[in-house]
Amino acid sequence: MRNFVFQNPTKILFGEGMLEELPQELESYGKNILFVYGTGSIKKTGLYDRVMTLLKKAGKQVFELPGVMPNPRTGKVYEGIDICRQESIDFILAVGGGSVIDASKAIAAGALYEGDFWQDLYLDGHEVEEALPLGTVLTMPATGSEMNCGAVVSDWEGNDKRGYGCPSLYPRFSILEPRLTMTMPKEQVVYGAVDMLSHVFEQYFSPPDDGNLSDDLSEALMRNIRLNLDRSLEDLLDYEARSNLMWCGTMALNNLLRLGKEQDWQSHQIEHALSAWYDIPHGAGLAIVHPNLLYHIRKEAESKLARFAVRVWDIDPSGKTDEELALLGIRATRDYFNQIGAPETLSDVGIPADAVEKLADTTQLIRAGYRALERDDVLAILKRSI
Amino acid sequence: MRNFVFQNPTKILFGEGMLEELPQELESYGKNILFVYGTGSIKKTGLYDRVMTLLKKAGKQVFELPGVMPNPRTGKVYEGIDICRQESIDFILAVGGGSVIDASKAIAAGALYEGDFWQDLYLDGHEVEEALPLGTVLTMPATGSEMNCGAVVSDWEGNDKRGYGCPSLYPRFSILEPRLTMTMPKEQVVYGAVDMLSHVFEQYFSPPDDGNLSDDLSEALMRNIRLNLDRSLEDLLDYEARSNLMWCGTMALNNLLRLGKEQDWQSHQIEHALSAWYDIPHGAGLAIVHPNLLYHIRKEAESKLARFAVRVWDIDPSGKTDEELALLGIRATRDYFNQIGAPETLSDVGIPADAVEKLADTTQLIRAGYRALERDDVLAILKRSI
Repeated sequence: MRNFVFQNPTKILFGEGMLEELPQELESYGKNILFVYGTGSIKKTGLYDRVMTLLKKAGKQVFELPGVMPNPRTGKVYEGIDICRQESIDFILAVGGGSVIDASKAIAAGALYEGDFWQDLYLDGHEVEEALPLGTVLTMPATGSEMNCGAVVSDWEGNDKRGYGCPSLYPRFSILEPRLTMTMPKEQVVYGAVDMLSHVFEQYFSPPDDGNLSDDLSEALMRNIRLNLDRSLEDLLDYEARSNLMWCGTMALNNLLRLGKEQDWQSHQIEHALSAWYDIPHGAGLAIVHPNLLYHIRKEAESKLARFAVRVWDIDPSGKTDEELALLGIRATRDYFNQIGAPETLSDVGIPADAVEKLADTTQLIRAGYRALERDDVLAILKRSI
Repeated sequence: MRNFVFQNPTKILFGEGMLEELPQELESYGKNILFVYGTGSIKKTGLYDRVMTLLKKAGKQVFELPGVMPNPRTGKVYEGIDICRQESIDFILAVGGGSVIDASKAIAAGALYEGDFWQDLYLDGHEVEEALPLGTVLTMPATGSEMNCGAVVSDWEGNDKRGYGCPSLYPRFSILEPRLTMTMPKEQVVYGAVDMLSHVFEQYFSPPDDGNLSDDLSEALMRNIRLNLDRSLEDLLDYEARSNLMWCGTMALNNLLRLGKEQDWQSHQIEHALSAWYDIPHGAGLAIVHPNLLYHIRKEAESKLARFAVRVWDIDPSGKTDEELALLGIRATRDYFNQIGAPETLSDVGIPADAVEKLADTTQLIRAGYRALERDDVLAILKRSI
């Protein structure tokens, strides 16, 4: 097990009716709240009204930033930063999925930072020591952003989608009411689950392999995501399944699974290039890319892929070599993604075959995990994804 | 999944050389440190000198409270509280195993509380809003106290061993250097691992059974504890095995496994009676009691015990009823405890058979889990333990 430092201070309030705790959770913060949300679904579902009523009950002055898009843009972040400065915002409340939360985190970091948030934080990696405090009400389980300190934002003009993270960006609290996720379209439920599985893959498929707990926990996550996604797709109103799936999303990326591990994250880097050019759902891009990345690194990851086949996909190992099991594990992943209705090829999401050179050129190489990918490796993975 | 609120702010510094971070971690606290430790093993191993050197480097004024015994006593807590008040202690540093950490937490709570810590906090359950800040350097993985807010202390004259917990008692930081655990006697390694397994049992064997993630995570923990205990017993100096086992101890009781679950903790209640009267190691008492408790609740816990047999002990389910599998799972647990050298009966630890009535009378009933135990249930479990 490698050395690590871990601290995750986010308070989770999980279950039926937990939103009612919002006034109590906001009590120790100032009066001016920036209420950040997406493109309007919270108005249709009544969540907007519930939140506003509770904010008024808490005696808060509410400023709104609506319209955060999936793959949130730098423009919306600049807009939020301006409001924070002009209105002396004391606390940011993000109500939505990962995009709303990530945009809110970028605003929280940028509002107290004098320079340009995109250039200095996202491109140059400067760590901010302080940020505006932030809380979340999660409506789409997928990214784990509700309990981590990362935030992915896109510079749309530059076709550049990037992640940033630092400890001051952990939400102070996150409210997870499983019923709030029940209005998601089925497609979004699927993409969310693929994102969760991909997060686990990124941590699981990396050294060391020394009998560490993290790998066993990852297998537990993967099995449980499958179980509860299957139940959810049978009945989108199955509260137990949806609540379990929601908690899986948080646990898949709250930094616990990575402890003692190197991690990979190269599939996420490739997907960021896809989304930055073609604005596809993150989970869709991962469903296309990740199995092909696993195929590309199958030699270096062979024994882990064999273990994955047996422990996650229940493939009988008797009479099979590790090489055979590894291929069966990758096959089972692809088959499962097909079964749940996730896309398989770039053309499934409207990305032309001749885009692969450009996508390979703009994928940021991070050289991690069992096999450090160079530009031509990325190209091979993308060609396999056509 | 039941509603829950979760927040665990403890910072973990895990791995080789992490103790060197001690001055940095103490920087934001005041000058006066109460250094709490046990009965002297840290002086033999050189850890005492390392800590003192680092505390001096940090410019701290050090007051010492040595001599905390296993099953720590109220007397030592009162002694620590007195020092904290007289010397205006700013921070408590606990260096040792669960007993040292638990005694330190009780001191941290009692020092800022005007009334009697034992009566008001432990017996009457009053929650303290503030406590002295506390950090730990862990030398024996077992109790998980390094990353939770609980503290078990014994009133030796009253034969009363009790737990107490409140959020202000989470350690600010805990330093986990696996090499520090390598001087533990083999017997203590075994008792520590039994304690970890028992912590997982207490959370796993309880409703609801709704496909929740916590149960899958618990199975991952149990399998990993077994794997790394076996490797540790083959070679007590196997760094990977000892580091994995150390992290298992923390994860088994940092409140993550219980999320959405009812929990049981009735084996711990019975064991507390054993230790309060006979001062036996906590892990030894649990090894005796827990399999017999599982046997006593085998009807109510049948399907879970059957799952446990298959998923934790790799018992082939084909052709077997749940009843058969449940019994095989309990048998496998007992066999494993025997194999690793843990005690099986009360007489193995010197407790006379005629003590069972007294032990049943003084076990605190908490009526939880699959079957709420009454006094006569406890007696039946104890009689089976003779």
